[in-house]
Amino acid sequence: MENPSHEYVHGYSARENRRLMDQATTLTQLLHHDTKYPAGALVLEAGCGVGAQTTALVQNNPDAHFVSVDISQESLGAAKSRIETAGFHNVTFQQADIFNLPFPERHFDHVFVCFVLEHLKNPLDALLHLKAKLTKGGTITVIEGDHGSTYFHPDSRAAWDTIQCLIDLQARKGGDSLIGRKLFPLVQDAGFHSVTVSPRMVYVDSSRPGYVEGFTKNTFIAMVEGVHDEAINSGLIEELHWEKGIKDLYRATGKDGTFCYTFFKALANK
Amino acid sequence: MENPSHEYVHGYSARENRRLMDQATTLTQLLHHDTKYPAGALVLEAGCGVGAQTTALVQNNPDAHFVSVDISQESLGAAKSRIETAGFHNVTFQQADIFNLPFPERHFDHVFVCFVLEHLKNPLDALLHLKAKLTKGGTITVIEGDHGSTYFHPDSRAAWDTIQCLIDLQARKGGDSLIGRKLFPLVQDAGFHSVTVSPRMVYVDSSRPGYVEGFTKNTFIAMVEGVHDEAINSGLIEELHWEKGIKDLYRATGKDGTFCYTFFKALANK
Repeated sequence: MENPSHEYVHGYSARENRRLMDQATTLTQLLHHDTKYPAGALVLEAGCGVGAQTTALVQNNPDAHFVSVDISQESLGAAKSRIETAGFHNVTFQQADIFNLPFPERHFDHVFVCFVLEHLKNPLDALLHLKAKLTKGGTITVIEGDHGSTYFHPDSRAAWDTIQCLIDLQARKGGDSLIGRKLFPLVQDAGFHSVTVSPRMVYVDSSRPGYVEGFTKNTFIAMVEGVHDEAINSGLIEELHWEKGIKDLYRATGKDGTFCYTFFKALANK
Repeated sequence: MENPSHEYVHGYSARENRRLMDQATTLTQLLHHDTKYPAGALVLEAGCGVGAQTTALVQNNPDAHFVSVDISQESLGAAKSRIETAGFHNVTFQQADIFNLPFPERHFDHVFVCFVLEHLKNPLDALLHLKAKLTKGGTITVIEGDHGSTYFHPDSRAAWDTIQCLIDLQARKGGDSLIGRKLFPLVQDAGFHSVTVSPRMVYVDSSRPGYVEGFTKNTFIAMVEGVHDEAINSGLIEELHWEKGIKDLYRATGKDGTFCYTFFKALANK
């Protein structure tokens, strides 16, 4: 948070931590099941936050070694204790700025970056910095959401307006919560080759109660609710309209409701 | 077309036929690979149109027998010659109205209905009529698109306004081009049980030229362009704005463009 070039929209509050953990648990399989590294590989996880994705990474790749960095010492502490509690030993945590990484050029066999670029003013620069630390032939994996991929039933203008607050607030801070759909050109522009992007769509209806709770309510709606004060105080939306919007989002978690959101995963080579 | 209760937005023009064929070829695997019927099963395909989906059905299920019905004699003719040319013999074509099907109750082991409900004023009634002809324990498969699932890069208000014309024109005729996300409650409301809905997302970027041509251009943009006259004549949009919108849609098929659309497939039991 020291450097305005990578301000974050998400805070590191207790609720935010819980939200990220819920998200990680529910989405782990969908997002990470196909991230596999060879034994002995040295992997940089850039922007590990509270370690929500780190657990999945180390679990799926017990014979690789991870260096997980984050700008926030507090987040790193949470990540570290989480990984220790889970009994994994193949991660080194280190405080570092993506734009000023304390590693030699071409140091890593692979780079993994998840839910980070959306918060940055200059995602292309970030990719270039990461590329510099990657060995020739190594892979980069980039995962991002796209709030514009959201739709639901029953549809609601008010609900959509609350989501638009999230998009606008992120944009004001230089972030881009519509970045998922842009991963293909972004990773290509950074000079990686063999870029393949696969969408990971989360479809939720009442036959999938785990997703209703873990994703729609505790991840997505919680994320929207998290910007309530900021949205109201900045005059982006009226309180009553906000309340109707949130109510309508919850309406989409009902017996006859449905909810859709898509993450995008890019894989490319240096 | 005789009965206003099931007016169609799509015409049966030559271009429309080509569009449906392109769509079927590109999407066959994505939509139909998991539609498998046991040997000897009697399956009703309701609303086969020009047979775009019929080929995939019979190819995947050579030992089942299909009765493919449509309200349009002309479409049936096209479907029949298509299936004959392809050398399949396990389909009987018959002109019939979904709301007045000339079959005994519980006649079929399975029912298949694809890209039909979106055009109907009363999709729930249609499902009830189909259910009546289905044996107890038989399955229904319903596939529909959802135009509201569309998003692309670069984003464009004008492009989205052309899509909105399609949605509005369909709604004016009593259709619902946002029906995909509603399949779960709709199929449940018709009294089917064990309803499962799986989204089939089409993600297109320039690394997938087959989809750029076959889906984004020749299916989706062609469909939007198909309502040009109607959209302009009904005053829904200005000609210049329309032209910009179409240009922007094509822009999303460029080297750095991406395009997303989602179909929904419901499977349920009687």
